[in-house]
Amino acid sequence: MARAFGADGIYIAGVQDKPLKNSIGKMVDAWGGPFWLEFTASPLSLLKSWKKERGRVVHLTMYGLPIKDVLNDPTFKDANILVVVGGEKVPWEYYKESDLNVAIGNQPHSEVAALAIFLDRIEAGSWESKSFQDAHLNILPSKKGKTVKQFDQKKKAI
Amino acid sequence: MARAFGADGIYIAGVQDKPLKNSIGKMVDAWGGPFWLEFTASPLSLLKSWKKERGRVVHLTMYGLPIKDVLNDPTFKDANILVVVGGEKVPWEYYKESDLNVAIGNQPHSEVAALAIFLDRIEAGSWESKSFQDAHLNILPSKKGKTVKQFDQKKKAI
Repeated sequence: MARAFGADGIYIAGVQDKPLKNSIGKMVDAWGGPFWLEFTASPLSLLKSWKKERGRVVHLTMYGLPIKDVLNDPTFKDANILVVVGGEKVPWEYYKESDLNVAIGNQPHSEVAALAIFLDRIEAGSWESKSFQDAHLNILPSKKGKTVKQFDQKKKAI
Repeated sequence: MARAFGADGIYIAGVQDKPLKNSIGKMVDAWGGPFWLEFTASPLSLLKSWKKERGRVVHLTMYGLPIKDVLNDPTFKDANILVVVGGEKVPWEYYKESDLNVAIGNQPHSEVAALAIFLDRIEAGSWESKSFQDAHLNILPSKKGKTVKQFDQKKKAI
């Protein structure tokens, strides 16, 4: 989902979910990339080093500030943004260490939905015209039914 | 999620998931409404009668047409829209009977993400300022942390 709406990649905290990594690899192989997945055993350290060395950090939470606060903040413009998405029990440190805590509405909702809308807004809907590299499958939009075009170009290792 | 982004209610096809109904009821009780959940044993009949009597039907599928086709179609303006969301194996009849098959991008993605972005676009982001009635809990947006305001108004039956 993150890939479809413009993210470059995703870090997963906690256990190394090999089937997830395989399934993302297969998806990128079929539908194109680039898109990466990495596991991190210390997400809070990642967050801190991202802030220091790479860019800005946004934590999505229903308790946060409106998304326009990010969109209107010049320090986020063209920045590399790390988006932190968790469940209900995100530890306090993530609220504290993130550059901004942002709510996609202050109502209960799915984290997947919040991330999708965040990416859509921050990228100004650029997913609508994004093309992926080295795809073996490509959909031709249809009024009814499913039309998929196959490519037999040389496969690239993922 | 559908509630947070502007849907009036949701039909669930298949088995009557009582715990889901209870959890939606509790959410509406706490965070406000109106929002309804109904089960339907015959979703295809519902779709057909919706088209005849109530409004328009959009089926979200990665194989469909761009969302601008809905946004630019005057017959969808101010219409009651039934949004059909399924998994990978949505039967052919839903493609055929829907007024439009719409893709939120022609890339693999979560149905939850697709529905969120669809609602956001079709409602022109009106969820950002939507208020819910008879809420007992309300979030005050915070820079850091969680601030929830409680109301002790008279509870309404759901």
